[in-house]
Amino acid sequence: MKKLNCSASLGKAGVSRRGLIGGAVAASASTIAAPAIAQANPPLKWRMPMFVPRTVDSVVVSANDLTRRVSEATDGKFQLQSFAVGEIVPGGPSVLDAAESGSVECAYTMSYYSVGKDPAYAFGSTLPFGFNTRGQAAWLFKGGGLELLNEFYNKRGTHSLPCGNSTAQMGGFFRREINSVDDLKGVKMRIPGLGGNVLAKLGVVPQQIAPGDIYPALERGTIDAAEWAGPHDDFKFGFHKVAKFYYAPGWWEPQATVMLFVNNSHWQELPRHYKAVLEAACTATYATHVAHCDTINSPGLRNIVAAGGQLRFFSQQIMNAAYDATFQLFEELKARSPEFARIYPIWKKFLDENELYFRVGEASYDNFVYSKRVRG
Amino acid sequence: MKKLNCSASLGKAGVSRRGLIGGAVAASASTIAAPAIAQANPPLKWRMPMFVPRTVDSVVVSANDLTRRVSEATDGKFQLQSFAVGEIVPGGPSVLDAAESGSVECAYTMSYYSVGKDPAYAFGSTLPFGFNTRGQAAWLFKGGGLELLNEFYNKRGTHSLPCGNSTAQMGGFFRREINSVDDLKGVKMRIPGLGGNVLAKLGVVPQQIAPGDIYPALERGTIDAAEWAGPHDDFKFGFHKVAKFYYAPGWWEPQATVMLFVNNSHWQELPRHYKAVLEAACTATYATHVAHCDTINSPGLRNIVAAGGQLRFFSQQIMNAAYDATFQLFEELKARSPEFARIYPIWKKFLDENELYFRVGEASYDNFVYSKRVRG
Repeated sequence: MKKLNCSASLGKAGVSRRGLIGGAVAASASTIAAPAIAQANPPLKWRMPMFVPRTVDSVVVSANDLTRRVSEATDGKFQLQSFAVGEIVPGGPSVLDAAESGSVECAYTMSYYSVGKDPAYAFGSTLPFGFNTRGQAAWLFKGGGLELLNEFYNKRGTHSLPCGNSTAQMGGFFRREINSVDDLKGVKMRIPGLGGNVLAKLGVVPQQIAPGDIYPALERGTIDAAEWAGPHDDFKFGFHKVAKFYYAPGWWEPQATVMLFVNNSHWQELPRHYKAVLEAACTATYATHVAHCDTINSPGLRNIVAAGGQLRFFSQQIMNAAYDATFQLFEELKARSPEFARIYPIWKKFLDENELYFRVGEASYDNFVYSKRVRG
Repeated sequence: MKKLNCSASLGKAGVSRRGLIGGAVAASASTIAAPAIAQANPPLKWRMPMFVPRTVDSVVVSANDLTRRVSEATDGKFQLQSFAVGEIVPGGPSVLDAAESGSVECAYTMSYYSVGKDPAYAFGSTLPFGFNTRGQAAWLFKGGGLELLNEFYNKRGTHSLPCGNSTAQMGGFFRREINSVDDLKGVKMRIPGLGGNVLAKLGVVPQQIAPGDIYPALERGTIDAAEWAGPHDDFKFGFHKVAKFYYAPGWWEPQATVMLFVNNSHWQELPRHYKAVLEAACTATYATHVAHCDTINSPGLRNIVAAGGQLRFFSQQIMNAAYDATFQLFEELKARSPEFARIYPIWKKFLDENELYFRVGEASYDNFVYSKRVRG
């Protein structure tokens, strides 16, 4: 799920008047907080722009869970105020930009919107053929990944706390069946980020289109294909009506981590127990965000198929070609970005060494029960 | 992972002198808490017996994460004091018994130790051929499962908060290879709970043996097989030295939910924001417990194989027979327990309807990358 319909050059100057007024209020509240540590629960109000409109259930339900948890755990004293995309910040990379520059206290977003600035921003969100949802959580929370990424984010102005994961995304809607790599040549597809870079190597012509413009573009045939999110949110957009072949898996986004990025100085000034509340609330919301997606996507997929969508799987030939192109791209990114080059070998080592038990203990079970329940 | 080496009839009378003294202290602390709600963070100290010895890393690391989170988020005011199995409560069902009776404020355990009292206690922990780790989380947190289970637990004296999951367990160690259902006949296996009931239908003779006694029993040939946990903790016990065939998957425990059970009256008296802290800390620990297991089990499995353990998969014939015997057992349990009969159809409906996207969006990706990385 990516939205890149806005200028990447947005900093403080791009914050609306409403945003600036809110900023002044919040800044004074957090300035009061530091000397007030003696007070058990000092009042604090932070603005939290989000990367999505309020209609994207898979994400907004979790943002609400997060703000509720923080408020309730501090008896209403520490408030995160969420803003949908466009309300105080346009969207795309500008959401994280605002937290990095300090024009807002924190941002609820995915850092891969900023891969144009540095491809290392992808690790905190997702990489093609990278971790699945549990692999990413293992690496971030217990495999040293989060500490490693925070070294990078800190230099850019924020401290990050994982607070959600939209899980494996789908491979998008195509107007025609795609059976071979040849069928991909010249296909105009709405797909941003590193996935677009990989598909470009296979002949696809990636397009950057805002979510609201995807449907008419597909309908008119301006584009031949588009990817957006998982089945629940995809169904709401109705893409299956104008491009009926719905592909799996979304190998360019096998999990989709959402983080709360807290501006460095606001993080440092936060009372210690508020840091603990925020960490617990974010990590709890990580768990319930995954649980939420795992509750809505099966019904969403059934809805799409019932409405005439045709489920397809990418052929082995396409999967193999995409896999090879992906790891070739990673080599190129290492040469381009010192931060990508620093993080990549550590990421790759964990990826290589940590899938064994998923395969032996989990997939062997999952595949068996899926085969039984499909037959049943 | 089950430990049933203690009397199931243990209530307050079974609490040691040290436990009773601690209980008196804690009771007075929590009695103070109720009138002190006006105070932002009233001091509170709860005793939390655990179901494992301190050596079981996969669980104890998470218990420590939980107690740390609660303490830090309340500026040290709300303390959960953990006790290893045997310190104030013997273990097995007595851990939950102590919270139900109110002889401790809360218990950190798995409710399936109490299936002897009512098989409905299994739903909050694990069922053979039931949910995998993500399925269980979806059902509990966002599918209505937790509310449903708390109706049951409340009647028995506690309010439950999921706070961990040890993920898919292994299928245990066997002294001889098991290729067919015939090979299972007469096998004396250490396996408690519903998994033991299913295997008994296939001819296995289930044995209840405390963890510390498993190794010598396998070595002497008193038993032919034993299951314990996942590879990390299994390796530490060294079972591969005396029963080298290590089987997957542990279909009787495809996930293993740990909960914090809070005695009803202590839950009701808890200040509202402490409830929120406890909920956030438990749910956060659910996420990091899974992440922890997903970090230690691949190295654990490699260690077992490097030390001479022989990895095997249950044959399709055995899996099919176990699957059929399991759902036959569930029908019998419905007839035996009104609570099992009430919860089962709701649980089964979610199970049947919610695996579709795991299969389409996740397993299709996972199986592809596993095949690539194994070859690579």
